[in-house]
Amino acid sequence: MPPPLNVVELIRRKRGGEALAAAELTDLIIAYTQGDVPDYQMAAWLMTVVWRGMTVDETTSLTLAMADSGERLSVRHQVSPVADKHSTGGVGDKLTLVVAPLVAACGLPVAKMSGRGLGHTGGTIDKLEAIPGLRTNLTRQQMLDILRAHGLVLAAQSATLAPADGKLYALRDVTATVESIPLIAASIMSKKLAVGPSHLLLDVKVGMGAFMKSVDDARELAHLMVKIGSSAGIRTVALLTAMEQPLGNAVGNALEVAEAIETLRGNGPADVAELALDETATLLAMANIVPGEDTGRQRAEQAIADGSAVAKLAEVIAAQGGDPAVVATPAMLPRATWREDVLSPKSGYLAAIDAEAIGRIAGRLGAGRQRKEDTIDPAVGLLLRAKVGDYVAAGNPLVAIHAPSSAAADGVRDNLLTAYRWSDQPPATHPLLLERIER
Amino acid sequence: MPPPLNVVELIRRKRGGEALAAAELTDLIIAYTQGDVPDYQMAAWLMTVVWRGMTVDETTSLTLAMADSGERLSVRHQVSPVADKHSTGGVGDKLTLVVAPLVAACGLPVAKMSGRGLGHTGGTIDKLEAIPGLRTNLTRQQMLDILRAHGLVLAAQSATLAPADGKLYALRDVTATVESIPLIAASIMSKKLAVGPSHLLLDVKVGMGAFMKSVDDARELAHLMVKIGSSAGIRTVALLTAMEQPLGNAVGNALEVAEAIETLRGNGPADVAELALDETATLLAMANIVPGEDTGRQRAEQAIADGSAVAKLAEVIAAQGGDPAVVATPAMLPRATWREDVLSPKSGYLAAIDAEAIGRIAGRLGAGRQRKEDTIDPAVGLLLRAKVGDYVAAGNPLVAIHAPSSAAADGVRDNLLTAYRWSDQPPATHPLLLERIER
Repeated sequence: MPPPLNVVELIRRKRGGEALAAAELTDLIIAYTQGDVPDYQMAAWLMTVVWRGMTVDETTSLTLAMADSGERLSVRHQVSPVADKHSTGGVGDKLTLVVAPLVAACGLPVAKMSGRGLGHTGGTIDKLEAIPGLRTNLTRQQMLDILRAHGLVLAAQSATLAPADGKLYALRDVTATVESIPLIAASIMSKKLAVGPSHLLLDVKVGMGAFMKSVDDARELAHLMVKIGSSAGIRTVALLTAMEQPLGNAVGNALEVAEAIETLRGNGPADVAELALDETATLLAMANIVPGEDTGRQRAEQAIADGSAVAKLAEVIAAQGGDPAVVATPAMLPRATWREDVLSPKSGYLAAIDAEAIGRIAGRLGAGRQRKEDTIDPAVGLLLRAKVGDYVAAGNPLVAIHAPSSAAADGVRDNLLTAYRWSDQPPATHPLLLERIER
Repeated sequence: MPPPLNVVELIRRKRGGEALAAAELTDLIIAYTQGDVPDYQMAAWLMTVVWRGMTVDETTSLTLAMADSGERLSVRHQVSPVADKHSTGGVGDKLTLVVAPLVAACGLPVAKMSGRGLGHTGGTIDKLEAIPGLRTNLTRQQMLDILRAHGLVLAAQSATLAPADGKLYALRDVTATVESIPLIAASIMSKKLAVGPSHLLLDVKVGMGAFMKSVDDARELAHLMVKIGSSAGIRTVALLTAMEQPLGNAVGNALEVAEAIETLRGNGPADVAELALDETATLLAMANIVPGEDTGRQRAEQAIADGSAVAKLAEVIAAQGGDPAVVATPAMLPRATWREDVLSPKSGYLAAIDAEAIGRIAGRLGAGRQRKEDTIDPAVGLLLRAKVGDYVAAGNPLVAIHAPSSAAADGVRDNLLTAYRWSDQPPATHPLLLERIER
């Protein structure tokens, strides 16, 4: 029998700034997942990690232990190559809905497992569930069957995937231990490792509308995740992308699905289209589907132009029990009963649209959830009529509110305008794609 | 109705290095004591305190909140002046058993409430309970009656005294959050404030045999406790005293009681007698019972010489149901069945006796407890036959083992010798009393 785990001693050593060994972290995570280490000891340990940080080796060991805490799908042993794409999340970020079908249409299979997540607007799964009939709760077998048949599957993470992460995240949320780059990296990467793609693209959002506010923090997180992915045999690239104003025009679940469909048809907003092409080209080149990113970009543009990208989305919707007609007729998506335009109170160039404020307001309309048990209204949200750099004349539409009622719209209208800044001169433009980080 | 306490926000702010307000700390402690804040949140908060420290104001507020978490005895509103004396604890530290009766015999009432405590040897209460028949679990009324009638009471802390401290200490013990000077100060002083003496002498032990290993840490703790005591209207003085070798010769509960009695009779070891006179003189002068410490010392020496000091101990033993004859006949105390001398393996001056090692060995013989539910054997322990600076010839007695059996003695004999260092030259001598700290 191994000696019993001395958790107090592990906490004490970490408190002193020591790095714990891989076996110690594995034992700690196993014992915690099994309920043999109480939450109060784990909470103290988590705070020492926030305080002292973790080495790359520690973070990798922790991530592997978390990935091993439940079922490992190892999709790359079933289909190879097989890609995954993850975003750290931003307001209006519907890129997964564009990139996954686009990459698959270009010949690289994509197994995308997503969480529901808390936040102002729903996660990818919440967005997908705005599509009538679509099922995302798939068994492992269903998931693999759909992936093999269609080169694409969009599924909800089951609770058996890295259960240690679910338990740890719930504890971090109530103990102010969320803000730790190693813990964030381990949380994200443990689920990716449990899925086990061969190629992984990480979109690390940075800016006022993202969880990572500074480029330095985002870069550190990206480097760490790339190292962890590489250590686990997954070819991993991270892109740092700007998140100051919302991405695209649509913020809200069904609105974002409609915008993703438009983008796959070649009619999407410039920023969404541009980033989707960048990410698709990166993944195709990573997996050697194309000789380089320029060719990857051409291939992606072609898949949009010839309709194969949007057809791939329709195909996977049908395979997962949804009505593929929604792709041709986005008006079939849930639609808010109260829709009104908020008009610009002045004339000028839009200098800033505070993504976080926009997200918070969409959340108040019912687009997101604060607690796990909250339900999301797929129909509601905001539709930006102008983006940063656009000139708007006073009295012209600035943003449309899609609300469950006029009273709900009344409750956010004034607040909405505080998210906007105008200027007399066109503001300087900044690229969306800031950095590419790989091993 | 007040807004609900946002504990996550309090943890987050402390994590960022912010000082919390008095009302916030009070609310936190009330809610925790009532079970409305879970252990995992408290554990995370405790670790932020270990990390970030606390200001004097924060520590004072925390201490007051902990003191207010249960019954407040406020003894100084019943008897005034009334003194208390607290030691942070060291190996062989039986000073309370000497100083409390000595101070009382000199005309300053003493209300001494003690804990049982974990450690190598018992706390003051465990030592007292080596006296046949003596009761220390007194009601508030019994305690006050004995204090008024005899100017002295030696009682066990009830669980209603600062219950927040009991709950917090248990949590700190299992989350590696014991080692924090503000938390240590708050733990000690919350109980002192709940008792409420008018004068308080703190003996802060420093050295290898004490919890505080460095003079800097001990000084910081002493300053903090003096400030807290003074803020609460208690005249407080702290003495930093050295704890490298054990204090006196006896280590073990009944052995220490016997040595305390001998000291009250004027036959105690020089170090115990010296420190007892220092502490008694300090308390008498603090409370203006004597014009200055020199007079206080003379008064104490006189109380020893005229027998009034030892008579005061006999008086309180009788008042608390014990047999006062033990004072005249210490052989009535429990006595270990196996007693043997360990002989010095070489000749030389004793250069060092590792107090912590001696304490640990006494604990292994049964003199202390590792867990709350352990029982103490009052009879066992160690009796030093020589102290640092003494010359011992090879084959002469070094230390006597008082064990429950010869097998128990066999188990510690070799280990015992590793606590000793010899030298050819007499070692330099160091004073026991290092510093006096007051407001």
